[in-house]
Amino acid sequence: MLERRYAILGTGALGGFYGARLQKAGLDVHFLLKSDYEHVTQHGLVVESKDGDFTLSQVNAYHDVEKMPRCDVVVVALKTTQNHLLSQMLPHVLKDNGVVLVLQNGLGIEEEVADIVGNDRVIGGLCFLCSNKLGPGHIHHLDYGKVTLGEYAPDYQAVGNTDRIQQIGNDFERARIPIDLAEDLLLARWQKLVWNIPYNGLSVILNATTRELMADAYTRKLVEQLMYEVVAGAKTSGRTISDRFIAKMLDYTDKMKPYRTSMKIDYDERRPLEVEAIFGNPLRKALVAGVNLLQISCLYHQLKFLDAQIRELSM
Amino acid sequence: MLERRYAILGTGALGGFYGARLQKAGLDVHFLLKSDYEHVTQHGLVVESKDGDFTLSQVNAYHDVEKMPRCDVVVVALKTTQNHLLSQMLPHVLKDNGVVLVLQNGLGIEEEVADIVGNDRVIGGLCFLCSNKLGPGHIHHLDYGKVTLGEYAPDYQAVGNTDRIQQIGNDFERARIPIDLAEDLLLARWQKLVWNIPYNGLSVILNATTRELMADAYTRKLVEQLMYEVVAGAKTSGRTISDRFIAKMLDYTDKMKPYRTSMKIDYDERRPLEVEAIFGNPLRKALVAGVNLLQISCLYHQLKFLDAQIRELSM
Repeated sequence: MLERRYAILGTGALGGFYGARLQKAGLDVHFLLKSDYEHVTQHGLVVESKDGDFTLSQVNAYHDVEKMPRCDVVVVALKTTQNHLLSQMLPHVLKDNGVVLVLQNGLGIEEEVADIVGNDRVIGGLCFLCSNKLGPGHIHHLDYGKVTLGEYAPDYQAVGNTDRIQQIGNDFERARIPIDLAEDLLLARWQKLVWNIPYNGLSVILNATTRELMADAYTRKLVEQLMYEVVAGAKTSGRTISDRFIAKMLDYTDKMKPYRTSMKIDYDERRPLEVEAIFGNPLRKALVAGVNLLQISCLYHQLKFLDAQIRELSM
Repeated sequence: MLERRYAILGTGALGGFYGARLQKAGLDVHFLLKSDYEHVTQHGLVVESKDGDFTLSQVNAYHDVEKMPRCDVVVVALKTTQNHLLSQMLPHVLKDNGVVLVLQNGLGIEEEVADIVGNDRVIGGLCFLCSNKLGPGHIHHLDYGKVTLGEYAPDYQAVGNTDRIQQIGNDFERARIPIDLAEDLLLARWQKLVWNIPYNGLSVILNATTRELMADAYTRKLVEQLMYEVVAGAKTSGRTISDRFIAKMLDYTDKMKPYRTSMKIDYDERRPLEVEAIFGNPLRKALVAGVNLLQISCLYHQLKFLDAQIRELSM
């Protein structure tokens, strides 16, 4: 097989980092940019990374998705708050036998993408990455970076690994991006929410780092209770997450450096929050199964209030 | 019967206002002060009120509870965060046949006071008052002012009205303070929580006025859901609050001027929050009956975190 051509939709802290790594490893990568387009066309992409700094002085940068070549793998690295643009974007950039790789947080995004491109052309990716954008085309990779890849099938049936995710995984590994393959994408999504729901939510609502949330006995308890509600939510999807997994997440967070969550960074930068992907979709999935996750619902309503204030400011 | 002598423990926005009104009506009132003692001794109490401004140039001010005369009615107008002081204070200032009137927010405070002074010497009072302290001995009464009085009996048995609450009610009415008599103190306490729990909690957590909370569809919904949880809590105490009462509270708040709740004022002034009286005690009462009020619990844990930050700052 020929080498896969990659499109990166959303060249920010996440898409810019992974895309730059793929290009540096010799792959053919095409970047869609918005506000940073002019700057990146002239100066390329700069990546400061704990694994070694590098600059890509020449990148295939596009301001308009219609000018991009059709690609084998279209990486969706936008914020989910921009996903209403996908139905217009994806048909322009996806090869007939290409696949969309959704590198976003939250639940149910693959279903939305499958509605646009078809059920057999979607892969989910969960990123465990700590990365910021310092300025136009200037990315700071602080820590972590692993991507968990999982094949999407209708109703999130677990279909195990496929050749194509193995091949994409190989490309990522060639780019020194650690890869896990998930046999059950939906389980992996719920597992990631065990961390994302308490820490993303409470860090914004209480203006706190992960360390502050863990140091206080009351928020630590609330974090744990929220994790158990996520587990109850997963159960409504027929997915089992063990108590040991919760213990592991708490322990892992205890040992992390004080961490500003992605939602807290969005909030501090006054960007719309990914409330629906991370909170709304899991809540609704559980509710359809007759389970009301009350504490997550409490956070959801609080975050919707804070998000509306941001959106009002930015109008 | 001779005229009743009043002690006011805690001469702030609430105690100062009611005490000043009682003295202005000719009653014998004795004020306990802390930081404002020197100032009030020299300059008296100044009340700016929507019902008419007045100054009391001479007041019976005390810095030390042991120097106060024993009184017929000891009004507890401290913040509940100061209630650990009551076991030392009350025995000094309460006449043998006197009664303690608890003018505080939250649940279960009368029980704590009864443990100190005896079951037959406690009356509860619920204040619907909007009042701030502008400076030492300087009170600004903005709106409302009604007090609901209710007799306390062990286990909050509803005992109806008694002569003594009627008499105290008469004193308050003489001071132009509107009075209601509650036949069931515990029901009145739970009813007040229907308002206090959502608005006090969310105004602090989300840095919002009542109007902002009502204008946003999501927080409005959360307010309503929290009100229903309070009703579920009341039910565990054998008290019934109707849906109509919730509708009335929502409607009443819609029509209010934008209002900074008492807990929000405390938070903004970096004073310890009354989290245990307003949230912790109702939660524990319901939990003993086997009911976990999950959304109130979520607010409780969030407020404990914010309260700990304040207490750390003020140490």
